[in-house]
Amino acid sequence: MVPKKRKYKVVIAYDGTDYSGWQYQDNATGIQQVVEDVLAYLEGAPVRAFGSSRTDAGVHADGFVAHFHLTKPIPPKNLVRAMNSRLPESVRILKAAYAKEDFDARLSATGKEYRYQLYQADIMPPKLVPFWTFCHRPLDLEAMRDAAMRFVGRHDFVSFAANPNRELESTVRNIFSFEVRKSGPRYVFIVRGDGFLYKQVRSMVGFLVSVGKGNERPEAVTELLEAKAPRTARVETAAARGLSLHKVFYRPIGNLV
Amino acid sequence: MVPKKRKYKVVIAYDGTDYSGWQYQDNATGIQQVVEDVLAYLEGAPVRAFGSSRTDAGVHADGFVAHFHLTKPIPPKNLVRAMNSRLPESVRILKAAYAKEDFDARLSATGKEYRYQLYQADIMPPKLVPFWTFCHRPLDLEAMRDAAMRFVGRHDFVSFAANPNRELESTVRNIFSFEVRKSGPRYVFIVRGDGFLYKQVRSMVGFLVSVGKGNERPEAVTELLEAKAPRTARVETAAARGLSLHKVFYRPIGNLV
Repeated sequence: MVPKKRKYKVVIAYDGTDYSGWQYQDNATGIQQVVEDVLAYLEGAPVRAFGSSRTDAGVHADGFVAHFHLTKPIPPKNLVRAMNSRLPESVRILKAAYAKEDFDARLSATGKEYRYQLYQADIMPPKLVPFWTFCHRPLDLEAMRDAAMRFVGRHDFVSFAANPNRELESTVRNIFSFEVRKSGPRYVFIVRGDGFLYKQVRSMVGFLVSVGKGNERPEAVTELLEAKAPRTARVETAAARGLSLHKVFYRPIGNLV
Repeated sequence: MVPKKRKYKVVIAYDGTDYSGWQYQDNATGIQQVVEDVLAYLEGAPVRAFGSSRTDAGVHADGFVAHFHLTKPIPPKNLVRAMNSRLPESVRILKAAYAKEDFDARLSATGKEYRYQLYQADIMPPKLVPFWTFCHRPLDLEAMRDAAMRFVGRHDFVSFAANPNRELESTVRNIFSFEVRKSGPRYVFIVRGDGFLYKQVRSMVGFLVSVGKGNERPEAVTELLEAKAPRTARVETAAARGLSLHKVFYRPIGNLV
């Protein structure tokens, strides 16, 4: 008799500093590998975990989602405890639940929210270094907000993707919202969309910072989107350490905005 | 003609995770060494920096103070920039000023404030790991506050020092205040005193956490202080990563409380 397999959905937070992102890479461990190693220990056999996103090397997550099957009958609450007791401190399972068979962490996602943290001051406090990017030059908040709004909507983001040739599918994506919050020296960029190209969030944030510094005009966002030309050196990639995958949505997009 | 030497006072913040504390040690670099290396580069000759405190390996600082002499005439504002441009991101000079010849970072100090950060919840968020200690068990805030108040005043802290034989002087210290703040799962222990013995702050916080967990009664603080017996295994040392030297005071103590 073949043992019954149960499908699980887990929400994962991680400090991505020392990882190659979710996926395996030659030069660094992937979060996927760390999670699969723990699952293999619990299951007593190899387990494949499927993630909602790739996430770049050095990028963090507060709400990454993955799914996998287990034969061992472990209630979700016990699974959280069992996994966390064996995972490194830099990776935590926040929640686990049984998932329907047709649930897929990546394909079922209706949207994602990324957050980018930037600290603007003369001196960067050492304790912010792990999760905040530093900017010495003062930033024009209103110009950045104007520019951010121009990303909202369905556009071809080829000008804001690091390596369009890596994309097998369309480079058209839908941005639902793009907010720039400021609290003293702390800026947080919050972007929601149906999906993002390779390094798209960091390219967009990098460009917003250029606008904030006065090196680019907000209108240049619209011009670059309309040009649909491959990315040039004009679009800088903001450092990975400021970026986190904040949340993955699975409800209809209508509820999001 | 002997060049004129100027005395400087600097305020330093650092992420102590990868350091042996302020002082040199065989197995890890000290903050002192990192600072002196940069000063030697600016001066073109070896410079000795004198710190306000030892600080243990892995402990952080938001307001460590040091003094040193330079022959090169560098205005304090330029010194901040020049030092920060060569220091690692984990060490920042926050302020610099000329100091009077009789100023001594350690001997002139009238008090110090340490802060200890502890996160109490079922799951520790990975982004808090570098500067917060984790506690799974719920804590009794009122019992910890009661216990903390018992440390306040002039006492022999031999029962709360890791290795009293290291102390050449008296083990009597004066605690001005000891506050326990709570905001959701975040506890911050704030202690001010005229000085602290080796691992005294972490021993006191470790004991407060034992009280919070219900393993010790608040009255035990008074009993241990009165016993004046060398520290036993009953007093645990809280992990270094939650502790920061927050501020060093140089005004008369009367202004402090």
